[in-house]
Amino acid sequence: MSKETTAVTPIRKDDFPGWYQSVLHVADLAEHAPVRGCMVIKPNGYAIWEVIQSILDKKFKLLGVKNAYFPLLIPLSFLEKEAEHIEGFAKESAVVTHTRLEKGSDGKLIPTSPLEEPLIIRPTSETIIGASFAKWIESYRDLPMKINQWCNVMRWEMRPRLFLRTSEFLWQEGHTAHASMEEAQKMSLDMLNLYADFAENYLAIPVVRGEKSEGERFPGAMNTYTFEAMMQDGKALQMGTAHFMGTNFSKASDIQFLSKDGVREYAHTTSWGVTTRMIGALVMVHGDDNGVILPPRVAPHQIVIIPFLLKEGDSSEIINRCYKIKEELESVEYFGRNLSVVVDDRDLRAGEKSWDAIKKGYPIRIEIGSREIKEGRVPLFLRTKEKKEALSIPKEELVSKISSVLDQIHSDLYAKALSYREENTVLVSEREEFEAIFRKEVGVGRFVVAPFKGDKSLEAKIQKDFGVTIRCIPHNLPPSCHSCLFTKQSNASQVIFAKSY
Amino acid sequence: MSKETTAVTPIRKDDFPGWYQSVLHVADLAEHAPVRGCMVIKPNGYAIWEVIQSILDKKFKLLGVKNAYFPLLIPLSFLEKEAEHIEGFAKESAVVTHTRLEKGSDGKLIPTSPLEEPLIIRPTSETIIGASFAKWIESYRDLPMKINQWCNVMRWEMRPRLFLRTSEFLWQEGHTAHASMEEAQKMSLDMLNLYADFAENYLAIPVVRGEKSEGERFPGAMNTYTFEAMMQDGKALQMGTAHFMGTNFSKASDIQFLSKDGVREYAHTTSWGVTTRMIGALVMVHGDDNGVILPPRVAPHQIVIIPFLLKEGDSSEIINRCYKIKEELESVEYFGRNLSVVVDDRDLRAGEKSWDAIKKGYPIRIEIGSREIKEGRVPLFLRTKEKKEALSIPKEELVSKISSVLDQIHSDLYAKALSYREENTVLVSEREEFEAIFRKEVGVGRFVVAPFKGDKSLEAKIQKDFGVTIRCIPHNLPPSCHSCLFTKQSNASQVIFAKSY
Repeated sequence: MSKETTAVTPIRKDDFPGWYQSVLHVADLAEHAPVRGCMVIKPNGYAIWEVIQSILDKKFKLLGVKNAYFPLLIPLSFLEKEAEHIEGFAKESAVVTHTRLEKGSDGKLIPTSPLEEPLIIRPTSETIIGASFAKWIESYRDLPMKINQWCNVMRWEMRPRLFLRTSEFLWQEGHTAHASMEEAQKMSLDMLNLYADFAENYLAIPVVRGEKSEGERFPGAMNTYTFEAMMQDGKALQMGTAHFMGTNFSKASDIQFLSKDGVREYAHTTSWGVTTRMIGALVMVHGDDNGVILPPRVAPHQIVIIPFLLKEGDSSEIINRCYKIKEELESVEYFGRNLSVVVDDRDLRAGEKSWDAIKKGYPIRIEIGSREIKEGRVPLFLRTKEKKEALSIPKEELVSKISSVLDQIHSDLYAKALSYREENTVLVSEREEFEAIFRKEVGVGRFVVAPFKGDKSLEAKIQKDFGVTIRCIPHNLPPSCHSCLFTKQSNASQVIFAKSY
Repeated sequence: MSKETTAVTPIRKDDFPGWYQSVLHVADLAEHAPVRGCMVIKPNGYAIWEVIQSILDKKFKLLGVKNAYFPLLIPLSFLEKEAEHIEGFAKESAVVTHTRLEKGSDGKLIPTSPLEEPLIIRPTSETIIGASFAKWIESYRDLPMKINQWCNVMRWEMRPRLFLRTSEFLWQEGHTAHASMEEAQKMSLDMLNLYADFAENYLAIPVVRGEKSEGERFPGAMNTYTFEAMMQDGKALQMGTAHFMGTNFSKASDIQFLSKDGVREYAHTTSWGVTTRMIGALVMVHGDDNGVILPPRVAPHQIVIIPFLLKEGDSSEIINRCYKIKEELESVEYFGRNLSVVVDDRDLRAGEKSWDAIKKGYPIRIEIGSREIKEGRVPLFLRTKEKKEALSIPKEELVSKISSVLDQIHSDLYAKALSYREENTVLVSEREEFEAIFRKEVGVGRFVVAPFKGDKSLEAKIQKDFGVTIRCIPHNLPPSCHSCLFTKQSNASQVIFAKSY
């Protein structure tokens, strides 16, 4: 295969969405389902989700969060309890109206047994979990209550994109109730930081932490914390959110507790979630024109070993050596899991297997032939380097060195993503500049950091005029010394504007 | 508390269904959801499911099964592909007909945007996974294909019972495709045995392995393998099933492959699943009039330690000792997990905590006061023994002995359940005897082993007349030397008749 040929067409710079679709296909991660807007998560994709789940689940449990399971279907009356909440989700609800099918006169099935009250498939579970909290919480002794569920949710989607935006997706949703406002606010911020640290330390994705503007908040929340990442087309992706609800939902669901002083008070609640979208993010941040690159700490298998068999004669020594190396490497613990190594002993040409390993994004590829056995060395091909460039390690040192090689891959991925984001982030203090960027920009997107002080309707107007939204008001940025680009008011916040998924 | 007082009312012999409901409540495992027929699985109940999942998931993966995720919603046209299949599920389908809500003139929400083709919430996923298999499988090289998903399913239920029969429940569904009939049949039998071994070795529930009669088969299957357990009211509970589909579903979904000889053939498929019903089973098999008894190998926490604090003076030594014991015990690996130990340091009377531990079913309770510290011994109260009867172990021997104590609890639970089943199983060879048992029996149920040779319609008649069904045709029983109780045909099979959940 010549140097110019790539495993994926189209390539990123020609057609980013087309590249994304194609990468998911060659890496065999997911595909569109026959049901409009839904996806099938294939074994390679689901295995990444399993790793993400197991890491996050452990972290949640260390914070005293317990898993539970609540019903898929929510009565309309529940949704109606919180006015903003229902407005936020009504337009994308899958509604169950019947509970039986019967054959019509033409032999076709028709829905019968209509429900008295239609039910909607949960788009999120604040209202149904709120009803349980109201029953479970009696006094301050029951607080804080920290509950999480791993489940599927549904928000009807007319323009689906695998992992990023589908009618059904998988997620976790944490819900907590607290005696004080301060504690609830801290909880939501702690979750933001837990998530953002996970994105950086495991997914190797640099993120901006901050809060959402009024126009972008979760329907019914007092405050939505977010962490945003830049994809390789310069667009933002919201990686996950944590909401501080104040007493909005506890009032709607009547979550009261008897305080230490014997007074009945409303609890302060939070909710927080991340979804299978994280898989889309790591593909769009790290992938290249040859396929996916899996960050080692969430890769289902960090290493693939490819036997380069003799054309004729006995190959068993080579195969045995491959399995020996696999066994040695799998004794190594790396970020809470033992390494997982695949020996690709399929009946295919070795060169074909190497390309397959590249497309699927194994962080490290090891190729073992008779020469490697003779020389007693193990060549590591890092997915972050050129295809032919190997790190040759004496076989005795493999086990002791492997973790630092994986760390290096992680750091390289992170550094590359960070410098890409920095190169494509612009500080803007004049409206003309803002307009020039978002009007004329046809190629790569940008994060535009600019002073803003305005309301929801101004945000809506900016979105209409420029196709961009406020992604977040970053934490750790001082207030701008400039006045708002649009309203000219002083005391503006520095916010990030960008196109987004 | 006097000897006659029980923690649970009603007691088993007075009102078994009432006892069951009450036990779930005192052990805080699950409750009815505000949505008709659905349940909320509370943290204590969900934790059991997590253990079951993690054990089974590892066993599946050792067989080469990979996890994936398929859509929740299934188009009606898919369901219609297999005639028996749709008949089996049409009467209990939750149907999605609209994808949007709007406010009507009275301010109430009404469903709008009707779907062209209604979708049903999966009652099981043969048809939607079949569509993927048809795409994914090209040649014999792609076989066997072994896929599993952990998910929620829905079968509309008018008479719900927590864990046993609810409109929504959680399960895993494995689906495999094979080149030969023999291999597929073996796969479904292997899964039956994997499940049944799990029931016996982990849940401590003795089961009868066998196959379903024609009238009880999965809609569309050639053969359904089942494993059945007897509850403490003598009724049978189907614990799980594995289906051999032959080519019925591959023909319906067009799952073809190119054989080694270059011929296009239909694949032979299987499916197999177990559900959250297993939690109901362990409650109904092992529970007593004081609450749940958790079998140690699936108990989320095997041990609870209760500090018996001094009325006055320093209690820190006692608390420290409790945490020290917890730490030591948690270093012990038992059936693939480290032991999990809870120190109940809540601000409650010790006696109250002991009763709480009994109700929740911790296999072992340890009570530590100043006397235990002075004597250097640790008293183990086994949930399978009387409340006050302790096994006193020198503290140095605790770690080395704990596994065998847990094994003993497991064996005791299993033995007790087995002898209960044996005492309530009757061999019957005359119709009069059969009628006497199922007509007159008003108290405890029975497994009646009897010769049967008949068809679906006869099974339906027996169900109508006696309220019993053929639970299974047990493996490892010789054919009966008697003729069928009902048809008088010879060469009858020995089958088990019972009332069931």
